[in-house]
Amino acid sequence: MPSTPANVAAAIGRIRAVLGPAGCIEDARDVAPYLVDFRGLYRGATPLVACPASTADVAEVLAICNELGVGVVPHGGNTSYCGGATPHESGDEIVLSLRRMNRVRDVDADNFSMTVEAGCLLADVQTAAEAADRFFPLALGSEGSCQIGGNLSTNAGGLNAVRYGVARDLALGLEVVLADGRVIDGLSNLRKDNTGYDLRDLFIGAEGTLGVITAASLKLFPRLRTIETAFVAVPGIGAAVQLLARMRAATGDAVTSFEYLPRIAVELATHHVPGVTDPIERPYEAYVLCEVATARDDPQLRGLLEAALGQALEDGLALDAVIAESLAQRAALWKLRESVPEAQRAEGASIKHDVSVPVAALPRFVPEATAAVLAIVPAGRMVAYGHVGDGNLHFNVSVPLGEDGSAFLAHAPAIHEAVHEIVRRYRGSISAEHGIGRLKREALARHRSHVDLDVMRAIKQALDPRGILNPGKVLP
Amino acid sequence: MPSTPANVAAAIGRIRAVLGPAGCIEDARDVAPYLVDFRGLYRGATPLVACPASTADVAEVLAICNELGVGVVPHGGNTSYCGGATPHESGDEIVLSLRRMNRVRDVDADNFSMTVEAGCLLADVQTAAEAADRFFPLALGSEGSCQIGGNLSTNAGGLNAVRYGVARDLALGLEVVLADGRVIDGLSNLRKDNTGYDLRDLFIGAEGTLGVITAASLKLFPRLRTIETAFVAVPGIGAAVQLLARMRAATGDAVTSFEYLPRIAVELATHHVPGVTDPIERPYEAYVLCEVATARDDPQLRGLLEAALGQALEDGLALDAVIAESLAQRAALWKLRESVPEAQRAEGASIKHDVSVPVAALPRFVPEATAAVLAIVPAGRMVAYGHVGDGNLHFNVSVPLGEDGSAFLAHAPAIHEAVHEIVRRYRGSISAEHGIGRLKREALARHRSHVDLDVMRAIKQALDPRGILNPGKVLP
Repeated sequence: MPSTPANVAAAIGRIRAVLGPAGCIEDARDVAPYLVDFRGLYRGATPLVACPASTADVAEVLAICNELGVGVVPHGGNTSYCGGATPHESGDEIVLSLRRMNRVRDVDADNFSMTVEAGCLLADVQTAAEAADRFFPLALGSEGSCQIGGNLSTNAGGLNAVRYGVARDLALGLEVVLADGRVIDGLSNLRKDNTGYDLRDLFIGAEGTLGVITAASLKLFPRLRTIETAFVAVPGIGAAVQLLARMRAATGDAVTSFEYLPRIAVELATHHVPGVTDPIERPYEAYVLCEVATARDDPQLRGLLEAALGQALEDGLALDAVIAESLAQRAALWKLRESVPEAQRAEGASIKHDVSVPVAALPRFVPEATAAVLAIVPAGRMVAYGHVGDGNLHFNVSVPLGEDGSAFLAHAPAIHEAVHEIVRRYRGSISAEHGIGRLKREALARHRSHVDLDVMRAIKQALDPRGILNPGKVLP
Repeated sequence: MPSTPANVAAAIGRIRAVLGPAGCIEDARDVAPYLVDFRGLYRGATPLVACPASTADVAEVLAICNELGVGVVPHGGNTSYCGGATPHESGDEIVLSLRRMNRVRDVDADNFSMTVEAGCLLADVQTAAEAADRFFPLALGSEGSCQIGGNLSTNAGGLNAVRYGVARDLALGLEVVLADGRVIDGLSNLRKDNTGYDLRDLFIGAEGTLGVITAASLKLFPRLRTIETAFVAVPGIGAAVQLLARMRAATGDAVTSFEYLPRIAVELATHHVPGVTDPIERPYEAYVLCEVATARDDPQLRGLLEAALGQALEDGLALDAVIAESLAQRAALWKLRESVPEAQRAEGASIKHDVSVPVAALPRFVPEATAAVLAIVPAGRMVAYGHVGDGNLHFNVSVPLGEDGSAFLAHAPAIHEAVHEIVRRYRGSISAEHGIGRLKREALARHRSHVDLDVMRAIKQALDPRGILNPGKVLP
């Protein structure tokens, strides 16, 4: 719904009156960081970044914008890979930042739950859980800057999903402000509640297009007390998938992370990121970073890991392995893994995919999709890494050595379509954990059925009939 | 939406043509079992039980009924406690039985997933998983007769939810037929998929009012290899909750079941159900059936359990305990627990609640709610038992000894309201795992906010605009 300049001006005036100067960012210099997405794909414009300090504030802002038909772009830590939190270039959308709503409202260790506001940094959520001898398992590279509201709105996945699931699996209840300013008070510390339709999961992963998440009740777990971390050289993706199944079986399902790195990912990370080293002397085709952990003092676990690795070495599923002997060694292994995105950025232009297929299909998917990419860009450098334990690869292609970035990026649409076509054949996902935002709207239209899209549009119409919530995102 | 007799007759004629005689039950004797709910609360009428053999059949039946405005009541194993699968007395609704759609379509052990049709018995789903050396954790007293489609439609909980969550947590994807016959093909063996709104969770727990689940992709887990089962006498609910937290911590979160039984539950079960025995010689106030399990050969686990119980005995949290020494002893303990509903039925009239509160609030909730009940029926016998690990109690009251059942049942509305009022104060649920069906529609209207109910109605209107799906269920 297009809004008129007069309506936008009227909305700004009323929002100023509600939030006061502390809740309104209007100076161009201060607004600037809200206009560019994390990857630098989009540069938008806005007359106002509204920073409410309470749920009631959010409700008033949305009621005003709904009445006047002004678009609202919810904004968390601005770490979206798909432009989901960036306003359009038209400059007639308000940005709604949740950053002032950053309180941990409550940690209930006995109930293994906590309640936090949407603007809490993920790292602060983790820390508050630890302080109560509990564990909040969501873990992402961006945890120091992303916000829990954004994590829930995009249904973030990350590094521990193989054991603990994605953000959706970790939410007990939500407080949500609807487009017209009404509030769903769905905060809940219950494990079971079958009273009517599941509204919670509708807002998780909806990227702020159905309502604005203002607070959440989260599941906590006992703190992990025994953690073993191995870095394993493997002959390729097929061996990695087999090793995963063995590790799950051998350790009694204690695998918390299972990350795959091809050789080039290790080379880029050690080359570009200071302090990153290759933990194994000889180079190998690929690697797995495998962490197993239990919530008890578990002297048996190390032996189970070693025995499983020993057997894998004998069977050729593993070629070499190191096990972290100290917290510092563990941190170094994780730094290697977490440096890959930064290293890939430093290496120049890249074409990215965030895909998933059934875990057992990865060994067929990777060579097929690689061949499809190389048929288009024969010298493209495949950097396919990530969460093998969830069937989720960041199936990226870096610019050929010595070639021009923009010429390479011109192949992006063809490469996306070729990869997504193979994903569809495996009934996979074209956005496993990064969401749709603005970037993948058109791809979504090709990927989901007409029925699915119709139902999504019917729900959007039912919840946001004037279309003010994050306009032009998610739905094609 | 009321349907005319002519429309009903027209629908039946067209459905007969689609399904043939094998798919139509019309003889009064054969129809009879579909007309009464499990608890005998409702007795409905229907001119036809349609038994489609395929998703395409279901789609045709729904398209016909939608066109003609004829109500359809989806029907699984008929184990609903809330009348959710029983047609109304008016006799103008078609019953749609999923029982012929009972194939296990696929078990993928490597991907820890399986795909089953809605009419599969839960026990058959469990067995198919076991045959692939995998574990499907949903477990209910009625698992030999309930169907997985019903389990998902009601978001069933059961005995292992403390560790593995409820039905919602175990579903990867759904195939659903919409009111107008269009099919959402959402079967998925993916662990991560963020491509648009979460349609799956809208249908889980919607009790067939938004669409008919025809098949599901389910999560599997490694088979449990070490299981220890203890029956522990405790001084009361407060000690039980403290013991739960200790057990979770001491065993590294290995608690799979944690069931609470007051003394009277043991007495009723041993009295009414042949073969049930009291495992502890002396009577105690209350008991916990606690099972801990891991998916590995875990010689340490028994010792951890014994040490935790030993400490609990010293601290007065436990008063006595037995640990099952054989599969037969384990089965006997479970038979005691699972006989309680049958024993309570045999004991005569009872007034039931299926409530949850935060686990840590149970020790305050139970005495308060007990006092509220006894203020209304001073001689009522409290049989509050169940899933303490989830904060979910079947907070039931049996008729006073020697009193008339129907006089007692006349107190039901007052008792329900008194208990639910206390539940609300703890931000609990008035239907933790049994759903709403027809029984709790009016209670739902008091329990959920106007905003929640409005959103639910908007979703219902968006997905089933003619109101043919399970009319008069769930939504007030």
